[in-house]
Amino acid sequence: MALTLDEIRTAVGRLATHVVRTPVHRLQSPEVDDAFGATTETWLKLELFQRTGTFKARGALLNVLALSEDARKRGVTAVSAGNHAAAVAFAAASAGVSAKVVMFASANPMRVQLCRSLGAEVVFAETAHAGFELAARLAEQEGRTLIHPFEGRTTALGTAGVGLELCEQIPGLDAVIVPIGGGGLCAGISSAVKLLAPNCEVFGVEPEGADTMHRSFAAGEPQAIERVATIADSLGAPYALPISFELCRRNVDGLVRISDDQMRSAMRFLLRNAKLAVEPAGAAATAALLGPLKQRLQGKRVGLIVCGSNIDSATYARLIGDQPLQPLLAAS
Amino acid sequence: MALTLDEIRTAVGRLATHVVRTPVHRLQSPEVDDAFGATTETWLKLELFQRTGTFKARGALLNVLALSEDARKRGVTAVSAGNHAAAVAFAAASAGVSAKVVMFASANPMRVQLCRSLGAEVVFAETAHAGFELAARLAEQEGRTLIHPFEGRTTALGTAGVGLELCEQIPGLDAVIVPIGGGGLCAGISSAVKLLAPNCEVFGVEPEGADTMHRSFAAGEPQAIERVATIADSLGAPYALPISFELCRRNVDGLVRISDDQMRSAMRFLLRNAKLAVEPAGAAATAALLGPLKQRLQGKRVGLIVCGSNIDSATYARLIGDQPLQPLLAAS
Repeated sequence: MALTLDEIRTAVGRLATHVVRTPVHRLQSPEVDDAFGATTETWLKLELFQRTGTFKARGALLNVLALSEDARKRGVTAVSAGNHAAAVAFAAASAGVSAKVVMFASANPMRVQLCRSLGAEVVFAETAHAGFELAARLAEQEGRTLIHPFEGRTTALGTAGVGLELCEQIPGLDAVIVPIGGGGLCAGISSAVKLLAPNCEVFGVEPEGADTMHRSFAAGEPQAIERVATIADSLGAPYALPISFELCRRNVDGLVRISDDQMRSAMRFLLRNAKLAVEPAGAAATAALLGPLKQRLQGKRVGLIVCGSNIDSATYARLIGDQPLQPLLAAS
Repeated sequence: MALTLDEIRTAVGRLATHVVRTPVHRLQSPEVDDAFGATTETWLKLELFQRTGTFKARGALLNVLALSEDARKRGVTAVSAGNHAAAVAFAAASAGVSAKVVMFASANPMRVQLCRSLGAEVVFAETAHAGFELAARLAEQEGRTLIHPFEGRTTALGTAGVGLELCEQIPGLDAVIVPIGGGGLCAGISSAVKLLAPNCEVFGVEPEGADTMHRSFAAGEPQAIERVATIADSLGAPYALPISFELCRRNVDGLVRISDDQMRSAMRFLLRNAKLAVEPAGAAATAALLGPLKQRLQGKRVGLIVCGSNIDSATYARLIGDQPLQPLLAAS
């Protein structure tokens, strides 16, 4: 089950010519000092500069590269709010494989456009449930391999590269904060960090309205939630699954929850202080350090995973505005 | 007059412990390929990650470090729409020198706050003219050294570091596009690029409503304009001056103009494709490649200087919106 350093290094090597070794950037400004304390050293891992705009390109591509010659010929499928679909489209195009992806009717139009531009065929489903059924049908009828949005050892080996790079880029980290949707990113990063920097604490952060990992940790096994309610559509997984759950359980030191308002506030904070325009998920780790982890990590050297961003300017402008978001919340 | 490579390297060395060697990031997405052509290779020099949020930290600090012991005791002053004031505040604080800066009453409140947080005393002037008079009085009465926002050989040596880094980071550049306000940034970058990569073309880009360098090139000497009218407040210099003019004239291969709408469109383009939230000046080079330089640089390896960004979320949201900006234009 546990990932080994050799496996992670091999995965990074396989992906090297296709994905970006994303840079890190230290947050430095008077407002940052005010917020975190002048002795806290805060580094952003800019995974939003990854191909397709999110970390998901890594796991998707590693999965596609692992396909048999026969499976490659039949192509791949996926179901996704958008970022995973774009990653699968990119991975398939990189490997010369056909992709047909299922997206939700509510998906951000920019992400739909991105998938199509990357050469994937896009089909729509009204609900998450219908989406997974449709993808399963595509897998069965067309022989396509279903690439799961977060679960799987191969996917975790892909995301582990983010942690490996971060440990190489910033020696002596005291803590890393990782957003959790399904937990695939955190499974990989926490595994890599504990292998390379065993004294570095790893924290997972979930939206209050999508806290599957909190519930799964409490129950001791993967749990589902009734309803996903968060502005962070990229973190809106309705359940946890065994492999990512188990890797997180072994390697994560703590979990925290953040509200939609905290993410919106962190988006504005990153605009002012990091000059980044991030979707809510990309601000989740920052929101955790501005909120629930602030005291605990005072004076520490902290890595914040800016996991990605694909957002259009109108949606972004609405999210960073001061108005409540009733219509958006109702739709999610 | 001309800067030498030795001088530039010495300047970079003096600044090394204080400023950020800003990263570069390659623009890669289907929309980028559509816009520039798939054979064009576009790199962003992320100088907005510089201390104080803009390149101006480099020149300001080099000027402060060059002060005599006696001048240091009397402190510094500056007049600025905001970014230069913040840079001088930062430079003074870094060197343990007092700073009293003159800002315009119309300055973005976030920039005023930034200057104060960096330890500078801020005084206000209603107009640019009154601001320069006030700063001159502070220099005379308090013995403070006036650090000019763009003019001077030392300032150009500071900004030249941006060009030196870019040439080291991206070998084989065919062209670099640099925003021009007063021309201090372009004076330094173009000097460095022509020393290190003589075959690389350097283009300057000005807002239509602040095209002092165009007029100065045409006249063969520094010119003033009657009225500055652009959303790019950081590029709104009312005149050119001899040193930066001369360095630009010697080293720049071409100048282009862009409209406010082109900058707003480029801001949205950078949000979607680079995940950056930039003020208008920070999008100027991108606007030039999306517009007047698109055909000429097709298939080339191009560096775009993202010179900086200090903007609050409300102003940013308004600028990336689809609404016309009458009130903002009227105020500028």
